[in-house]
Amino acid sequence: MATVGDASGLEAQAAAAAEAARELREAAAALASRHSADEDALRRRATALDADLRRLQGSLSTLGPPTLEKVEEELERARVTISDSDVAAFFPSKKSGKFLNTFLGPVNVRVARKEDKLKVKDEYNNYRDRAAFMFLLFPSILLLLRWWIWDGCLPALAVQMYQAWLLFLYTSFALRENVLIINGSDIRPWWIYHHYLAMLMALVSLTWEIKGQPDCSSKQRGVQLFLRWAIMQGIAMHLQNRYQRQRLRTRIALGKAKRMDVVAGETAGVEGQLLLLYPVLFTLQVFEAYVGVLLLRTAFNGLASEWQVVVCGILLVVMAVGNFVNTMETLMLKLRFKAKMKRAKSRQDLSHSSLNRPHQS
Amino acid sequence: MATVGDASGLEAQAAAAAEAARELREAAAALASRHSADEDALRRRATALDADLRRLQGSLSTLGPPTLEKVEEELERARVTISDSDVAAFFPSKKSGKFLNTFLGPVNVRVARKEDKLKVKDEYNNYRDRAAFMFLLFPSILLLLRWWIWDGCLPALAVQMYQAWLLFLYTSFALRENVLIINGSDIRPWWIYHHYLAMLMALVSLTWEIKGQPDCSSKQRGVQLFLRWAIMQGIAMHLQNRYQRQRLRTRIALGKAKRMDVVAGETAGVEGQLLLLYPVLFTLQVFEAYVGVLLLRTAFNGLASEWQVVVCGILLVVMAVGNFVNTMETLMLKLRFKAKMKRAKSRQDLSHSSLNRPHQS
Repeated sequence: MATVGDASGLEAQAAAAAEAARELREAAAALASRHSADEDALRRRATALDADLRRLQGSLSTLGPPTLEKVEEELERARVTISDSDVAAFFPSKKSGKFLNTFLGPVNVRVARKEDKLKVKDEYNNYRDRAAFMFLLFPSILLLLRWWIWDGCLPALAVQMYQAWLLFLYTSFALRENVLIINGSDIRPWWIYHHYLAMLMALVSLTWEIKGQPDCSSKQRGVQLFLRWAIMQGIAMHLQNRYQRQRLRTRIALGKAKRMDVVAGETAGVEGQLLLLYPVLFTLQVFEAYVGVLLLRTAFNGLASEWQVVVCGILLVVMAVGNFVNTMETLMLKLRFKAKMKRAKSRQDLSHSSLNRPHQS
Repeated sequence: MATVGDASGLEAQAAAAAEAARELREAAAALASRHSADEDALRRRATALDADLRRLQGSLSTLGPPTLEKVEEELERARVTISDSDVAAFFPSKKSGKFLNTFLGPVNVRVARKEDKLKVKDEYNNYRDRAAFMFLLFPSILLLLRWWIWDGCLPALAVQMYQAWLLFLYTSFALRENVLIINGSDIRPWWIYHHYLAMLMALVSLTWEIKGQPDCSSKQRGVQLFLRWAIMQGIAMHLQNRYQRQRLRTRIALGKAKRMDVVAGETAGVEGQLLLLYPVLFTLQVFEAYVGVLLLRTAFNGLASEWQVVVCGILLVVMAVGNFVNTMETLMLKLRFKAKMKRAKSRQDLSHSSLNRPHQS
């Protein structure tokens, strides 16, 4: 039991603490409103500048080649300065998509600081790396065990665990890419739709009864093809990730890209891609469509009557076609960009052939 | 083609825009570092106050009853002032859980402003309302159609759609509640584990082959029981949501609660609960365990050999027991709190029986 002195001392201290808490509350509220006024002012400046840039961009058509290139370059530089700095946070955010909203509710997943944005982007790349590794490993192990231990017959549980993993993986890809888009990434919409379709396929395939013995080698033909396709997918993801990092490093060095550019499913500018990555991607897409058609044929020949076979077949064909179209579009853009760069470079070489311009900005 | 004057004018404007962009970049960087310095200063004050409060709380044991109550009240008031204002945002955040991190990556889902926090909380409550409605509607429709059209036999696709919806629903609950926890909500950990278990059960039940005709009424007994349990769950969720809102309103009015308190699965303080909600909750838990035991019995009697039956049975029993323990704990806390309030009130009535204290803070 405390003495009277102690007790009244504690009472006074507690009252002081309650008073300090009230003062702190006022200070925090004042800080919040001052900060939000500062941010409004900066937002107004950013919006005005953005309008200027748009107006100038609109009048480009009135210019002839030599000036056009110069003005275009200045505008591009201004845009990169904005998008690759803290200023970007002051533009109205792309609205949080329906997908993210449905899973998470109306939470702001926008990252304000530039460094944090890069961290999110970097973590996404690491996640893709790990996923690509699993994409290679998981089906390889299944096929290996099938041949080695399971006597040509995949047990249902093993396949279902793989399908559940796919469902989780595609869901997390879709969520993470929606977060990246809100943070200013330029992912082509198709690659996100693709993940929605892949989610649906994983879900449908989970309800698909895996036939066991006897004679499972013919009954499990679809599953087997799918696993082989997944192994190829793993290899392609590895290649993509490698080129992607390389491209980003190159483009950041050139100051040509916003760093939040994640272009899943395609990469840019490196010669080697045209020789290795694109052939692999196109082969993958043909194989994907082939697996889809095979599933549809089994269904229509009456060998497998489940509706899941038909839906998975259709989804695979749709994804293959969509992937092909989008990869082609990216390739075209890239070739056009390359040709333009070449023209610009030869012009530059002509006009100041002896000038070295390392610090032009 | 533009005249020379136009062209050089545009060139100058573009250069000015690029310069403005650079200035804006510097301004944004300066603002960011000034704001973060302001926030650091406030964070230091908040941390010091928090340490003070902890120290005072620690010395409470030295006090006797009359002073103890007073000091406790002051400390509680200080804590509520902090947690129910913008100050809360300056304390180190609870670490983003592994679950959220796995699905979303390292994104900050913490809401800084108090109003936004309330919005997130409110949206979560609305989401729970809608979910409760669907929880009632979906299985009711299935059971109704089974009796009316499907001749006593649920088609596999309908049940699987319901299971897929459950998987989505529990995933989004788990994600949203993890977000709420990071934003300072006091959800009991069990209710989140419960959602993880429910996710697992939905996933497992998706792979469970739904037996069709003939004689499906006996084969589908498990599914049917599960649907009836889900209808009861829907009713209980409705009751919970109603009491929850009521409790929050009351407690906010009394200034006794942080507004981020979401206590899923239990509510507080309202007399009616003890008469209606708790009996319903306990009945639900008994029924849940009963369905689980029934599934296990079917499996061990050799009537259904699938492993899914065993896993779902075990999960249901575990969830029922966990729910029961946690509901009991909450009820005990509540009764103890009520008794304490009663004691405090009778003391107050004794000491200043004629005083009215409406604006004591």
